[in-house]
Amino acid sequence: MGEHRTLTVQLGERSYPIYIGEGLIDQAGQRFIEHGISSKSPIMIVTDEHVAVQQHLVRLESVLKQAGFTVSSAVVPAGETSKSLAVFEELVTKALQAGLDRKSTIVALGGGVVGDLAGFVAASYMRGIRFVQVPTTILAHDSSVGGKVAVNHPLAKNIIGAFHQPEMVLYDLSTLQTLPQRQVRAGLSEVVKHGLIWDAEFVAWCDENADRLQALDSDALGYALFKGCSVKAAVVSKDERENDLRAILNLGHTIGHALEAVAGYNQLLHGEAISIGMVGAARLAVKLGAPEQVYTVTKHVLSRVGLPVRLPEELDTDLIMDAMKHDKKFQEGSMTFIVPVAIGEVEINHTVSASLVREIVEELKQEA
Amino acid sequence: MGEHRTLTVQLGERSYPIYIGEGLIDQAGQRFIEHGISSKSPIMIVTDEHVAVQQHLVRLESVLKQAGFTVSSAVVPAGETSKSLAVFEELVTKALQAGLDRKSTIVALGGGVVGDLAGFVAASYMRGIRFVQVPTTILAHDSSVGGKVAVNHPLAKNIIGAFHQPEMVLYDLSTLQTLPQRQVRAGLSEVVKHGLIWDAEFVAWCDENADRLQALDSDALGYALFKGCSVKAAVVSKDERENDLRAILNLGHTIGHALEAVAGYNQLLHGEAISIGMVGAARLAVKLGAPEQVYTVTKHVLSRVGLPVRLPEELDTDLIMDAMKHDKKFQEGSMTFIVPVAIGEVEINHTVSASLVREIVEELKQEA
Ligand SMILES: NC(=O)c1ccc[n+]([C@@H]2O[C@H](COP(=O)([O-])OP(=O)(O)OC[C@H]3O[C@@H](n4cnc5c(N)ncnc54)[C@H](O)[C@@H]3O)[C@@H](O)[C@H]2O)c1
Ligand SMILES: NC(=O)c1ccc[n+]([C@@H]2O[C@H](COP(=O)([O-])OP(=O)(O)OC[C@H]3O[C@@H](n4cnc5c(N)ncnc54)[C@H](O)[C@@H]3O)[C@@H](O)[C@H]2O)c1
Ligand SMILES: [Zn+2]
Ligand SMILES: [Zn+2]
Repeated sequence: MGEHRTLTVQLGERSYPIYIGEGLIDQAGQRFIEHGISSKSPIMIVTDEHVAVQQHLVRLESVLKQAGFTVSSAVVPAGETSKSLAVFEELVTKALQAGLDRKSTIVALGGGVVGDLAGFVAASYMRGIRFVQVPTTILAHDSSVGGKVAVNHPLAKNIIGAFHQPEMVLYDLSTLQTLPQRQVRAGLSEVVKHGLIWDAEFVAWCDENADRLQALDSDALGYALFKGCSVKAAVVSKDERENDLRAILNLGHTIGHALEAVAGYNQLLHGEAISIGMVGAARLAVKLGAPEQVYTVTKHVLSRVGLPVRLPEELDTDLIMDAMKHDKKFQEGSMTFIVPVAIGEVEINHTVSASLVREIVEELKQEA
Repeated sequence: MGEHRTLTVQLGERSYPIYIGEGLIDQAGQRFIEHGISSKSPIMIVTDEHVAVQQHLVRLESVLKQAGFTVSSAVVPAGETSKSLAVFEELVTKALQAGLDRKSTIVALGGGVVGDLAGFVAASYMRGIRFVQVPTTILAHDSSVGGKVAVNHPLAKNIIGAFHQPEMVLYDLSTLQTLPQRQVRAGLSEVVKHGLIWDAEFVAWCDENADRLQALDSDALGYALFKGCSVKAAVVSKDERENDLRAILNLGHTIGHALEAVAGYNQLLHGEAISIGMVGAARLAVKLGAPEQVYTVTKHVLSRVGLPVRLPEELDTDLIMDAMKHDKKFQEGSMTFIVPVAIGEVEINHTVSASLVREIVEELKQEA
């Protein structure tokens, strides 16, 4: 069982705790009551088919029912396509049919897809009701903290959404045991990112504990997710609505998003794409004057947790460049990039030339 | 031309002004610039076909273009059916195609339908961009102030939405000249409501100026909308997210919503339904001990502005009662009602018995 860790996302009256530990789902009823979630109004759990099949849903449902809550569940198809207005509308229908009212709570049990989708339902149902995040992927340590919720539009990802902070995040490490290996590694990509932008010591720790992390060792995972969530929480506390600082969370994402778009969303997982993107950002950093080890350490630690660091040669450089130009960070020949200046420290550079980025993309294809 | 009036909705950092006067659309460019709306990012005007055909759209477009803004327009079908997720999605598509970014502004030019719909697009596009209300109906003095924005779901009105305050409200009285008479009267219903809940003197003024109001006399309208907006703004300032006080704005709406549902949404306009509902609330008040004149004055002033005060006999009482039971204000045999205790003063009564309400519904059919 082991101890659990708690940390708080400081956002004034919207502050909330993140609990991280083994078996926390079994304490969900008690936590809900502690947080003043009323059992007079029905609760709806949203999850996806992969999670539902793993008994995590049954556990959560039964513990909440035992605690006196009226619970219904909605299971959506697994995968990014569920982050659509169509599935959103179905969930609103289910919420209405289950009688959810202004005092009701929506619980997101799943990865980032379920969290973003269910979160947007909670943000807009009756103009906003409460919601709780129960993340079941490693990547969701990122998506469940910070209050960004959204669905996709056929023309653009995450374009329809809100800022809607959860009441709490209940991170039960035992759910991660059923996660496919590739998803484990993809999630570790954002964990390492949080180290790279904020905490050099933690980057070293990730390197040393890479094997334990990939093996889903509970102590290592608990610590890594605690650190990752801490960085995210610290950044979000200082800049809830992404006016400035929050942009640093996009390390590796300018190239990463372009790779996802060009490769097609299923060939390259988000975490894999931004792993390559972070190596690119580190290469760029060195060209702009950062010490060589920014690049070597970045590449080394990402490889250690099993992530790709080389850009697949078959992806066309022109297409990658075009995809970046559609990104709003691009303006008249120069782009905005999050650039590491040292391990654990980044800056926002608004004047990176497109031709330099092209050079980097080419080099990333040669990465050893 | 005449002077214009200004009032401020006090909401801390979300405070904003309401400008009311003749010809304000002609000053839109200058106002936008004053309010820091950037001409670097494209603006999108949302309106409906009835408004578009009246030249109000052409005026607004051209004045904004003259002021240096990049402007596109989206025209939706007139009527409540446009407040749907489908039309919402189309507007997001148009916003993407027009290149709207995080610094862009959406302008709602129209009645409550356009305001609610465009407002929800603004609330959720890229997790929230700025928006400006340019109301063109009398009813919209109500809907454009307070930040409630929403679309409908086939099973429930206004169920998908947000609180999203505009940057400003620009109320150009000249647009009201093209409004059909029936819409004029329906809008006056909410004007009178604002007097009934808050300001006895203003109720007397409405009585004295009823003819000028129906004739769309600009001075009378300007004053009435200023007073109506002032009451709405005062209530909203004290309770932005409808925790308690804001409920008083629902005077007449418990019965009114039921009548709309039973009559079908096109037979009885919202303002007409709540006129009858307010007479019902006044009848109820007298039964609960308020002075007789609460009823006589309410009924008199509503008749004076040309509104129905009698419930159409063909509407079935059982169906009306059922519709109220689906309303969330109903709990185990007793209902929540906004009850006038005097002209200009209401209270929230949570224990009105359903049988008393049924009595009132029957009596409303006999109203002289
Ligand atoms: N809101 C934010 O701030 C934010 C930040 C980062 C990413 N995101 C979003 O997060 C999404 C990606 O999140 P994700 O990687 O968690 O994707 P995901 O939710 O699709 O989960 C990945 C896969 O793992 C499966 N799965 C989840 N938990 C499982 C478990 N315990 N056992 C077995 N299988 C399980 C899912 O069904 C899915 O097939 C993207 O839509 C992205 O836009 C949001
Ligand atoms: N958000 C809120 O707080 C709030 C409050 C009250 C009502 N509402 C909403 O407002 C809506 C009703 O508003 P409404 O009564 O303004 O309806 P509306 O927007 O449908 O306008 C009524 C009719 O008048 C037409 N019209 C509008 N301006 C015109 C003009 N200047 N000249 C000619 N025709 C014109 C419209 O095309 C429409 O046919 C409802 O959807 C209701 O839910 C919202
Ligand atoms: Zn990411
Ligand atoms: Zn109303």
